[in-house]
Amino acid sequence: MIYLDNAASTPVHPKVIDKMIPYLKEQYGNPSSIHRLGRAANSAIQNARREIADLIGADSREILITSGGTESNNTAVNGIMQHGRGRHVITSAIEHDAVLEPCRRLEKDGCRVSYLPVDSQGLVSVEDLKREISEETALVTIMLANNEVGTLQPIRELAEVARSKGIVFHTDAVQAVGKTHINVNDLGVDMLSISSHKINGPKGVGALYIRKGVPITPLILGGGQEMGMRSGTENVASIVGFGEACKIARENMEQNIIHFRNLSAILSRRILSEIPATTINGHPQQRIPNNVHVTFLGVNGEDLIIKLDENKVAASTGSACSVKIQKASHVLKAMGMSHEQVTGSLRLTVGTANTREEVEQTVDILKMVVRELRAVSPYKSKYNF
Amino acid sequence: MIYLDNAASTPVHPKVIDKMIPYLKEQYGNPSSIHRLGRAANSAIQNARREIADLIGADSREILITSGGTESNNTAVNGIMQHGRGRHVITSAIEHDAVLEPCRRLEKDGCRVSYLPVDSQGLVSVEDLKREISEETALVTIMLANNEVGTLQPIRELAEVARSKGIVFHTDAVQAVGKTHINVNDLGVDMLSISSHKINGPKGVGALYIRKGVPITPLILGGGQEMGMRSGTENVASIVGFGEACKIARENMEQNIIHFRNLSAILSRRILSEIPATTINGHPQQRIPNNVHVTFLGVNGEDLIIKLDENKVAASTGSACSVKIQKASHVLKAMGMSHEQVTGSLRLTVGTANTREEVEQTVDILKMVVRELRAVSPYKSKYNF
Repeated sequence: MIYLDNAASTPVHPKVIDKMIPYLKEQYGNPSSIHRLGRAANSAIQNARREIADLIGADSREILITSGGTESNNTAVNGIMQHGRGRHVITSAIEHDAVLEPCRRLEKDGCRVSYLPVDSQGLVSVEDLKREISEETALVTIMLANNEVGTLQPIRELAEVARSKGIVFHTDAVQAVGKTHINVNDLGVDMLSISSHKINGPKGVGALYIRKGVPITPLILGGGQEMGMRSGTENVASIVGFGEACKIARENMEQNIIHFRNLSAILSRRILSEIPATTINGHPQQRIPNNVHVTFLGVNGEDLIIKLDENKVAASTGSACSVKIQKASHVLKAMGMSHEQVTGSLRLTVGTANTREEVEQTVDILKMVVRELRAVSPYKSKYNF
Repeated sequence: MIYLDNAASTPVHPKVIDKMIPYLKEQYGNPSSIHRLGRAANSAIQNARREIADLIGADSREILITSGGTESNNTAVNGIMQHGRGRHVITSAIEHDAVLEPCRRLEKDGCRVSYLPVDSQGLVSVEDLKREISEETALVTIMLANNEVGTLQPIRELAEVARSKGIVFHTDAVQAVGKTHINVNDLGVDMLSISSHKINGPKGVGALYIRKGVPITPLILGGGQEMGMRSGTENVASIVGFGEACKIARENMEQNIIHFRNLSAILSRRILSEIPATTINGHPQQRIPNNVHVTFLGVNGEDLIIKLDENKVAASTGSACSVKIQKASHVLKAMGMSHEQVTGSLRLTVGTANTREEVEQTVDILKMVVRELRAVSPYKSKYNF
């Protein structure tokens, strides 16, 4: 299998698994227990928390460990609204559903939510944000890298606008972590969401960076774990694995970025030059290096995924999190793409384990399957494929 | 180490780890992805869901997978209040904080919450529940087995009272699952919370049984996983492990119960007969078989835990989830115990891996450390130890 769906999930790094196993086998204490097994588990969590913090230039006391990126985003959006100065949230039209759905619930509860538009490359405008801010604005939440097209937002500028007005700024960095250098102080964000399984860690664990002093209401209440901010017995083995994944991502950041860039460049260049009626989407420079998002006119993306799968290539049409519902991408629509362009799209996301041979082979397979699908396309005569 | 803190957390069963490893190593797909790696992950989740359902006599479509018992309890309490017919909840004074804290938040939001008292053995009265029910009651939530003293509530009778009035009934069964036969239809409950790491599964995963037709508002929103009831990429490896743990618990239920009962009987009998000024707490018959809760007068429970730990016995004063806050047990206070009794308490909870030799040795160690602590006790003269 050639796995080019690393934005959906990544293989767990072997070193991460090695670190996790003892916390499944011998070190099974509850971190809240005061005996040595409990203390060992608790100490392992604190070590992992430092690794998570180090990856984004935070203090470990600013790291809230959650069950994943979705819970982190929910905590950020709900948590600040209970403390905010007003009942207005600003977000973008291309956020992940884990931000959009909590925003829609806020709307039902009587909040006002502004959805900033994006341009054809997926960029939010700083001027639009300035215009939208009001006395009532309690939270601005705009993603760092888009999960479908890979565009990186100008987060430093956007955060500066919000923070100059005393408004809390959150960014969903799930797709950006490990693919670009992130420092929460350089960015000037107040909250930032991370997911473990997008950076070769286990699924079911993530974190929310919360800048010291930013008031947050917890989403899950109970025994008071995570300083009362997130109750429930800690997922020790997965947290330890997540910490190790962060360490590996930090230590290999430079070489990974170069690797991603090289593989993506091969994909983009060959696809554009060897397959006609094709476009590469998202911003050409301001983007994460592991994402290549392509539109093949006259092809249905779902059919393409299935054909690729038959040829042992794993890819995606967009967000794995919404494929089951088979709805057209709200991201591509917000970027002004036509129905035909939206449905003809494919997301290829490379990972640390992919090789040059794999991406070369993928282009060969793509050429073949796109040709096959276009031969029976209802758009056949339109393009004269 | 002699581990007698199985109510806090349990060792993961070796077979469970074996089942999990492939989902960390090769089967790393996102269950929402439509390629074969995604489908394999999704199919593994559905198999696990059936095992979870089978353990409690439910249909697998009634199983909502969560990040643990705490999230399950939060989902049940919050989720039903947004659909309930009124703004009144009935619970008991001895619930876990994962139920009490969400109830307290409801109170802040203007709901009324009734906390049913318990008798000296930790039992809720069916008559008290009947009296408390009003036209406004939307939810009754009463735990199946208490996490500190092990008392089993008359859930069938309590649920019948609620359901005869059309009120949704939830039970926190985290400590009861695997220690007593549970069938959601026999019990007549509408919702039931389970935790994986209390039954030799991994931490960070649990479930909420939701009877078909019971309306619940999700706690975590996003990509729409778990039929829209709990968003976030599924924790595949842990879910698979949880399923296997449920299967093992179901297949070994009879022999485990006998094993727990035998070990607990040795502990109770020898402690009572060989250590003076000692009482065993909780209900003598209506209880889970793996819990022995003892009060040693004139001894501080925390000191006892530390002394036991020095002698390589892992035990607890009560709920692991609240030891860090060092607050006196609300359960023991509700049972009418004095401050001295509360602070002199110890919880020993046996597991499948414990042996007769271990519990015999524990009593020997207990005799020694209780004697040592009483020799320097401020209550020394009171009891003439």
